[in-house]
Amino acid sequence: MPRYALKIEYHGAPFSGWQRQANRPSVQEAVENAIRRLEPDAPGIMAAGRTDAGVHATGQVAHCDLARDWDPFRLSEALNYHLKPAPVAILQAARVDDDFHARFSAIERRYLFRLIARRAPLTHDRGLAWRILSPLDVDAMRLGASHLVGHHDFTTFRSTICQAKSPVKTLDEITITEHEIPQGREYRFFLRARSFLHNQVRSIVGTLERVGAGAWTPEDVARALAARERAACGPVAPPDGLYLTGVRYPTDPFA
Amino acid sequence: MPRYALKIEYHGAPFSGWQRQANRPSVQEAVENAIRRLEPDAPGIMAAGRTDAGVHATGQVAHCDLARDWDPFRLSEALNYHLKPAPVAILQAARVDDDFHARFSAIERRYLFRLIARRAPLTHDRGLAWRILSPLDVDAMRLGASHLVGHHDFTTFRSTICQAKSPVKTLDEITITEHEIPQGREYRFFLRARSFLHNQVRSIVGTLERVGAGAWTPEDVARALAARERAACGPVAPPDGLYLTGVRYPTDPFA
Repeated sequence: MPRYALKIEYHGAPFSGWQRQANRPSVQEAVENAIRRLEPDAPGIMAAGRTDAGVHATGQVAHCDLARDWDPFRLSEALNYHLKPAPVAILQAARVDDDFHARFSAIERRYLFRLIARRAPLTHDRGLAWRILSPLDVDAMRLGASHLVGHHDFTTFRSTICQAKSPVKTLDEITITEHEIPQGREYRFFLRARSFLHNQVRSIVGTLERVGAGAWTPEDVARALAARERAACGPVAPPDGLYLTGVRYPTDPFA
Repeated sequence: MPRYALKIEYHGAPFSGWQRQANRPSVQEAVENAIRRLEPDAPGIMAAGRTDAGVHATGQVAHCDLARDWDPFRLSEALNYHLKPAPVAILQAARVDDDFHARFSAIERRYLFRLIARRAPLTHDRGLAWRILSPLDVDAMRLGASHLVGHHDFTTFRSTICQAKSPVKTLDEITITEHEIPQGREYRFFLRARSFLHNQVRSIVGTLERVGAGAWTPEDVARALAARERAACGPVAPPDGLYLTGVRYPTDPFA
């Protein structure tokens, strides 16, 4: 069976997450249902990142095996047709080798977290960013973040239900940018690693927000990391602001 | 009664437009209801631009007369509290002179229109932009737009139900920018004038899209303008992409 990689964008709000679950709508189920409108016996699909309920994607990657030899462009068009009206879009489809695996072949994941500080409630960005009331100290957050970049035991920053065998990961990048918006400020956190632990990005952003607000010092982040216990973590940021923006493979399947 | 100016942001989708209408939700009604939670006998409010159904705002301005002497910050906070959960936010409130009139004192309105060209349906931007399938020739659109800037009879570009006494307006600016987005391109149209006719921005953008797609030449826009008849206009762009972004007054009430 020919294998295809799919680059997928979705709005996380209506879904209980990527992963298929009984009696709850998932992105995986939406995409699998669309695939089975084309090929009723198609097997299930596999994604690079199992995003949580409410988490968005602009560059999720999944692979699927199909019986027919599909033209990749026609495949993406047909899937988008059957995905309507769900807020899920196939941005690109590509034919890949049989040994391509969306999850296990991935060598890097990239996430964006959007945090908006302003007094007024969100309108257009509701559900698309975490809103807080007061501006943050971005230099303090950058200093705090610098303690997390590198090869560390991230026990403090992973969910207690995380299923990864090891809490040791290498975090390659945390870049924080600041943008002026009407009557407020937006902070964008860009994180990059080979792989992430469950809730790692939201745990890191929630902790850095405390630093930006002045409730924690940047050094408190280093202490929390060194503690290697979940209780030392700051609050976990809500899912609304989180986007899986890209997945990298040894060879780009979509190039 | 002290008079206040309100800077208002809203998502247009759930509303039949700014203007209050019997049995249909309007932004005006949402804001007036919030005001009357503070002062039950408060009179109605007046806005700078009567946006249509589905049209958004990030900088609408309205004025209201209240019996009490409100601190502007507390007024905006109280209104936002009572506006929940409607996607309407008071970005700022300001005390203004009794002769300030949100509509008649305005000397400039600014609009943004977002147009996204890509094959895949929109997810996060659904309802927030007009999506078309193929990229546009931005240079051709700029050339077409250049025929519209200035003092003209805009009969071609106004709705047949437009109530303005004269179709003659001065359009001060049409700037078009182009941005790369995942698997597509976004075009942003920035328009600026003392005032606009009903459907003028959407009529102009819909016509320029035809130019960008190659169906019209830039000179066809000049001919359509010169025809001074509604039938000469291109298709009217949908409301989803349109934002009232700002209103200018001789003295900025929010400075």
